[in-house]
Amino acid sequence: MRVERFMSGLALILLALVGAGVAHAEDGYALWLRYRPVGQTWDARYTAAATQLVPAGGSATITAATSELNRGLRGMLGAVPGQAASVSRDGAILYGTPANSRVIAALDLPLKGLGNDGFVIRSVRVNGHRATVIAANSDVGVLYGVFRFLERMETREPLAGVDVRDAPKLKLRMLNHWDNLDRHVERGYAGLSLWDWFTLPEWKAPRYTDYARANASIGINGTVLNNVNANPDILRPRFLKKVAALADVFRPYGIHVYLSANFGAPVAIGGLKTADPLDPKVQAWWKAKADEIYRLIPDFGGFLVKANSEGQPGPQDYHRTHAQGANMLAAALKPHGGIVIWRAFVYSAQNSEDRAKQAYSEFKPLDGKFADNVMVQVKNGPIDFQPREPFHPLFGAMPHTPLMMEVEITKEYLGFNTHLAYLGTMWAEVLDTDTWQHGQGTTVARVLEDGKGTGLTGMAGVSNIGNDRDWTGSEFDQANWYAFGRLAWNPQGSAEAIARDWTKMTWGENPQMVDAIVGMMMESREAVVNYMTPLGLAHQMATGHHHGPGPWVHNLSRPEWNPVYYNRADANGIGFDRSATGSDAIAQYAPHVAALFGSLNTVPDKDLLWFHHVPWTYRMRSGQTLWDSLIDHYDKGVATVAQMQRTWALLKPYIDKQRFDEETAFMEIQHHDALWWRNASIAYFQSLSKLPLPAGHAEPPHDLRYYEAIKTPYAPGQAE
Amino acid sequence: MRVERFMSGLALILLALVGAGVAHAEDGYALWLRYRPVGQTWDARYTAAATQLVPAGGSATITAATSELNRGLRGMLGAVPGQAASVSRDGAILYGTPANSRVIAALDLPLKGLGNDGFVIRSVRVNGHRATVIAANSDVGVLYGVFRFLERMETREPLAGVDVRDAPKLKLRMLNHWDNLDRHVERGYAGLSLWDWFTLPEWKAPRYTDYARANASIGINGTVLNNVNANPDILRPRFLKKVAALADVFRPYGIHVYLSANFGAPVAIGGLKTADPLDPKVQAWWKAKADEIYRLIPDFGGFLVKANSEGQPGPQDYHRTHAQGANMLAAALKPHGGIVIWRAFVYSAQNSEDRAKQAYSEFKPLDGKFADNVMVQVKNGPIDFQPREPFHPLFGAMPHTPLMMEVEITKEYLGFNTHLAYLGTMWAEVLDTDTWQHGQGTTVARVLEDGKGTGLTGMAGVSNIGNDRDWTGSEFDQANWYAFGRLAWNPQGSAEAIARDWTKMTWGENPQMVDAIVGMMMESREAVVNYMTPLGLAHQMATGHHHGPGPWVHNLSRPEWNPVYYNRADANGIGFDRSATGSDAIAQYAPHVAALFGSLNTVPDKDLLWFHHVPWTYRMRSGQTLWDSLIDHYDKGVATVAQMQRTWALLKPYIDKQRFDEETAFMEIQHHDALWWRNASIAYFQSLSKLPLPAGHAEPPHDLRYYEAIKTPYAPGQAE
Repeated sequence: MRVERFMSGLALILLALVGAGVAHAEDGYALWLRYRPVGQTWDARYTAAATQLVPAGGSATITAATSELNRGLRGMLGAVPGQAASVSRDGAILYGTPANSRVIAALDLPLKGLGNDGFVIRSVRVNGHRATVIAANSDVGVLYGVFRFLERMETREPLAGVDVRDAPKLKLRMLNHWDNLDRHVERGYAGLSLWDWFTLPEWKAPRYTDYARANASIGINGTVLNNVNANPDILRPRFLKKVAALADVFRPYGIHVYLSANFGAPVAIGGLKTADPLDPKVQAWWKAKADEIYRLIPDFGGFLVKANSEGQPGPQDYHRTHAQGANMLAAALKPHGGIVIWRAFVYSAQNSEDRAKQAYSEFKPLDGKFADNVMVQVKNGPIDFQPREPFHPLFGAMPHTPLMMEVEITKEYLGFNTHLAYLGTMWAEVLDTDTWQHGQGTTVARVLEDGKGTGLTGMAGVSNIGNDRDWTGSEFDQANWYAFGRLAWNPQGSAEAIARDWTKMTWGENPQMVDAIVGMMMESREAVVNYMTPLGLAHQMATGHHHGPGPWVHNLSRPEWNPVYYNRADANGIGFDRSATGSDAIAQYAPHVAALFGSLNTVPDKDLLWFHHVPWTYRMRSGQTLWDSLIDHYDKGVATVAQMQRTWALLKPYIDKQRFDEETAFMEIQHHDALWWRNASIAYFQSLSKLPLPAGHAEPPHDLRYYEAIKTPYAPGQAE
Repeated sequence: MRVERFMSGLALILLALVGAGVAHAEDGYALWLRYRPVGQTWDARYTAAATQLVPAGGSATITAATSELNRGLRGMLGAVPGQAASVSRDGAILYGTPANSRVIAALDLPLKGLGNDGFVIRSVRVNGHRATVIAANSDVGVLYGVFRFLERMETREPLAGVDVRDAPKLKLRMLNHWDNLDRHVERGYAGLSLWDWFTLPEWKAPRYTDYARANASIGINGTVLNNVNANPDILRPRFLKKVAALADVFRPYGIHVYLSANFGAPVAIGGLKTADPLDPKVQAWWKAKADEIYRLIPDFGGFLVKANSEGQPGPQDYHRTHAQGANMLAAALKPHGGIVIWRAFVYSAQNSEDRAKQAYSEFKPLDGKFADNVMVQVKNGPIDFQPREPFHPLFGAMPHTPLMMEVEITKEYLGFNTHLAYLGTMWAEVLDTDTWQHGQGTTVARVLEDGKGTGLTGMAGVSNIGNDRDWTGSEFDQANWYAFGRLAWNPQGSAEAIARDWTKMTWGENPQMVDAIVGMMMESREAVVNYMTPLGLAHQMATGHHHGPGPWVHNLSRPEWNPVYYNRADANGIGFDRSATGSDAIAQYAPHVAALFGSLNTVPDKDLLWFHHVPWTYRMRSGQTLWDSLIDHYDKGVATVAQMQRTWALLKPYIDKQRFDEETAFMEIQHHDALWWRNASIAYFQSLSKLPLPAGHAEPPHDLRYYEAIKTPYAPGQAE
C-alpha cells in the first residue's frame, strides 16, 4: 500500500517532468547532440560501458570533456556515472593524454602520427577492470575523442571491443561568419548574428558555449566572426574586448577566433593617409594592431581578407600585388603564430575576361610568392557557390601555395532555409574530382591535404548559423553544418555515411525512417540543380537576394552580374562557350581535364552548358534534343520535390509534431518555388527557342511577363 | 526485489527527464506562464480543487482554455485531470457560458454588466459536488477566467471559497509592433520581429500560439502587426495572406489583428495620382481594400495611422484635416465593424511652436469632428516616451472624442534591454494623475475609461517583443509586457501589486526573494530618471539610437531634435520655460493644473525643469541649490543601481544560474551606463555653470571632450 502511494507520487512527478519536457521538446536547439534515452535494446550494453569517469588532468578542455560526458550519459542512459581518480570498476571511461596520465602512457597506444587533434578510443583492461580509454596527444584531441565516443552511442554503435584511431586530414576546419556588426547576417537565413555585440563582453550567453560544443563535436577548430565584407570597426579596442570574451568561451573547445580584416583599416580607423602595404607606417600600424590583439587573445588565429573584390579595398589600389598585401599582414602576425587567409574570389570591374577565368589569371602567377603563413582561400568552383559548378581550376595549379577550399554552407543559391538541399553530396562531388594536375588521382581532396611544406591545410565553410532557435533556420540545414565539419575533418569522407550518422542523431534510430530520410537527402541537391539550373546553367537567380528565378535579367551595371551573361540564350541556342572556340577557360585545367570538358563528345551532361554553347536542337548523347532534355530536367526537379513530400508524409508517425509540421510547411514552400523556377525558366527560354514543349510536359500557366513581374522584397539575408 | 528493480528503472527515467529538463530550464521562454510544481504546501490543496475538467461548448476558444488548464495543471500539480461532460466528483472545474451550459445558467451567477470579456470564478456545488465554476458571457471571457484561475495557483492564492468577479475597464488592450517587413524592429531590443514573413503563410510557427497565449493571459485583445512608419506593401495581397494566417492563429485567443496603414498607399501601391481623402477614387480604393481584407480576415480590427508626422504622408498633404483623413478610412471600415486609430503624435517641420504644445494645438479643435469609429491615440506625455513626462494635455481636453493612451513598453529612452526599469510605476503615475478637466478626480485613467458614447476605450503599448528566446531581451522586460496588459485591463491597478504577481510567477514564491525583487522593481524607474534626466529634464539622449547621453547635441537639422532644445542650459541656468512667461504650454492644462505647474512655488521638483528655466543657483524648496540638487539626483541614480546590484547578488541562492548570471551581467552594464550618464551630463552642465561639485561628489573622471567623443554605432533598434 505504501509502495503504491509512493509509486503514484513518482508517477505524478514523472508526468510533470514529461510535461515540462514536452513543452520544450524537439525545437532543434540541441542539434545532433540530442542525447535522448537509448531505449531498452542498448541501455544495458551502454550502461555497462559507462560506469565511471576517470579524467586525466584538470584543464578547461578536460573539464569540458567531463561535462559533455555527463550531459550525454545522463541524457542517453539516465544516470551520471561517478568520477574517480583511477579505474576501480568495470566499465570505466579513462580519458586524457599520456603526459597527464601514467596509466594512459603505460597503455602504449598508437598515438604517434595523430598530431594534435587525433585520438584513440579503445577497449582496454586497467587495474584488472574493463575500461574504455580515450587518449590523444593533446587535451583537445581527448575532447574530440569524447565527442566521437558519445556519437557512437547516439548512432548505436557497439562500445564493447571498440578500437578507433582517427585524426583530421586538414589542420584548419573553419567557419566563416558573414555577420555584420549590427547583427545582420549577409546571406543568413536563420535570424540575427549569434554575436550580441551590444551585451558583450559582460554577458557571455550560454549559447556561445553551445555553439562551441557543436563545433567541437565535429572537429571545427576555427571561426571567423565577422563578414568578409569587413567593417574596420571590428578592429577597434571597443570591439576587440568583445571578441576576446568570445575567444575565452571558445578556447576550452579548441576553437580559435579569427577576424576578417578590412585592408583599408589603416586609413579608415588608423588615421593614416594610405594603406599601401609597402609603406612603413602601414606596416607598423598592422604590427601594432596585431600586438594589441594578441595581448587580448593569445591564441588568436589570424586574418581573413577579401581584397580588391566587389568593391573592397586591397593592395592593387596601390599597384601592389595580392602577395605583397598578404605578406605585409602575415609579417605582422608571424611573431604571434597567426596566419593570413587571403581570398582568391576576385573579378574586376574593368576586366572583360570570362569571370570564371579571372581568379586563376590573377593568382596562378603569384604561386610561390606568398609568405609561409599565408593560405589562399579558393571557392569550390570558379564562379560563386552555384548549385553546381565544375571544380575551381586553381586546385592543383598552385604547387607552392597552401590552398584552403571555401564552400558556402548557407544556401544563398539553393533555396535559403526552406528548400531541403543536403550539400554533403555537392562538396563530396568537388572533393572527389580528379584535377589531374599531378597525374591521375590528384583529387581536390588530395590537393587540400597537401600543405606544401607549411603544414597549413584547411577548409572553410560560410556559416548558416544565426540566432534562430534551431540555429540554421531549418532542421535539415543543420545537416549541412554537420557535413561541413565532417568533410573538413576528412575530405575523403562519404556524403551518404555522414547523412546517415546525422539522421540517426537528429531524427532517431528507426531504420526505415533513417533510410527514407537519407534517401531524401541524397537526391535533394540534384533536385535543386534540376529545377533551378540544370545541365550546367548557373547564376540564373533574381537580383540581389538571389531568391527565385531571373534568367531574363540583363540590365545590371556589370555584365557578369546578369543571368544572361551566364546562359547566353538566344534564338539559336544556349550555354557559355568556354572551350577553345570560346573563352578557353578549359585551358586553365590540366590537359586531361581540359580535353574532357572541351569536347562535346566527352563533356558530362551536367556541365554541358557551363562549357559549351549549343543549338536548342542539339542532339544529346541520350538521343534527346537539348531543348527536350532541358524541359525534362526542370520537371524532374519538381517531381523529386513532390516525391520527397510524399515520403515525408509517411514519416509522420515517427517524428515529433513540431519538427514534422515545420518541414511539411517548408516542403510546401519548396514545391511551390520549384514550380515557379520551372515555369519561369521555361517561359523565358521558350520565348527565345520558340519550340513547343515535348509531349507530357505542361505549358507554364502564365506568360513570361507574369514571371518577370514577381518581386520578392524583404527577402532575408541581403547584402546591406 | 522486482519492485526495487522497477523503482530503479523509474529512477533512471526520472533522472533522464530531470536532465532533459535542466538543459532547457529557465531560459525565459515560458514568461510568467511557467507552471512549475507548486510544492508540498500547496500540492494537496490545489489538487483537491482540480480533479476534473468540465468544459461547456466546443469552440476553438474553449479548446484553448482546456489546453491551457491541462498545461498549467500538469506543470503545477504533475497531473492532468480527466475531462467529463458533467460534474461528477469533488474538485471539478466547470467552465463556459450560460448559453452553452444549462448547469452554469442555473447557477445564476452575477454575469450581468461584465460585458464580453468579464468573468466570474466561484466555488459552487454542482450535482452535490464541490466545484469551481469559471463563467462568462462569451468564450473569450471564459478563457480570461481560466488564465486568472491558473494565475491564482501560480501566485499561491487559495482556491477554496474563491469568489472573483472581474471585467476589463477598457475595451481595447492592444500591442503596437513597430516591426518592419524585413523583420527589423524599430526600437526593438529583443532580436528580430516575431513575424517571419518569408515562411508565412505556410509555416505557422508554434511561437505564434505562445505569443497569443501570453497576451490572452493578461487580457490583451489586439495587435498591430507592423510599424506605424508603415510600409504600404503590407496591404498587398501577398502580405495580406500572411496577415490572415497570423489572424487565424490568434483568433481562438480573442486577439484581433490590426495593421498600420500608410496614408499614401493609394499612390504608392494603388496606382492613383492622389491620396486626397476627399477624392472619390481614393475613397473607393480604401473601400475596396477594406473589403479585400475582411474577406480574408472577418474579424480584422482596423487601421492604426501615423499621418503627417515625422515625414509620413497624411491628409494635410492635400490641405485636409486629420479628421477628414481619419473619417475617410473609418467609412471604409465601418460596414465591417472596423475602427481607425489615429495618432496624435504630430509636430511640424515648419511650426516653431514648443513641440510639447503642438499635438494639443492640432487636435483640440478637431474634437467632435471624428466619426464614431475613430479613436485618437495620445502618448502618455506631450513629447515622446521620456523617462518622465507630465501627462499629455489632451487627456480630458477632447470631451467628444474617445482617446486611447499610447505608452512605450520597449525601453527606447530607458536603457534598452540591459537596464532594469520597471515601467508599471511610470504608467501608474500618469494614469493616477488628476487632469482636473471635469473637476477633481478626472484622472487620466478615468478619461480613458470614458468612451464618449462610442463604447470605444483603450490603451496601446509599443511592444518590446522580438524573437529572442526570452521574448523581450531580458527577464525584467517581461514585467513591462505583463504590467502593460494588467494596467490596460484595469488602469486603476496597483503597480506594486502587479510587480508582486509577476515576480511570484517569474522568479518563485520565496517571500524574502519576492520582497527584494519587488523592491528593486519599484525603485528602478526612478533610478533611470535620476541618472538620465532628473528634475524634469527630457530628451537628453544621443542622436538616432537614443543610447547614452548627448545633452550637448545642438546641430541636428530640426531644433526640436536637439537635446539643447529641451535643457536650454547656458551660463545662467537650465530648464524649458513653459510657464506663462515662456511657451505657455501650461495653458493647455486645466486651470488648477496650470496653476500647479505654472508656479515655482507649487511645481513638483520632478517636473521643475520641464516647466521652468531657473538659475543654477536657484534655491529649491529643500534649501539646496538647483545645481547641488541636480548632482545629488545623478548620484542617487547611480547609487540606486549599485544598491540593486548588491541586492541581486544576495539572491543567488534563490535563482537558477542562467537567469541569475544574465541579470548580473546586465546590471554591470547598467551601472557602467549610469555612471557614464552621470559623468557626461555633469561634465556638460558644469562646462556651462562653471560651478564646483558639492562636497562628497566626485568630479567626472574625464573631460567633456571625452564624453562627446563616445559613439555607439550599431546600437540595436535604430529607425532604418
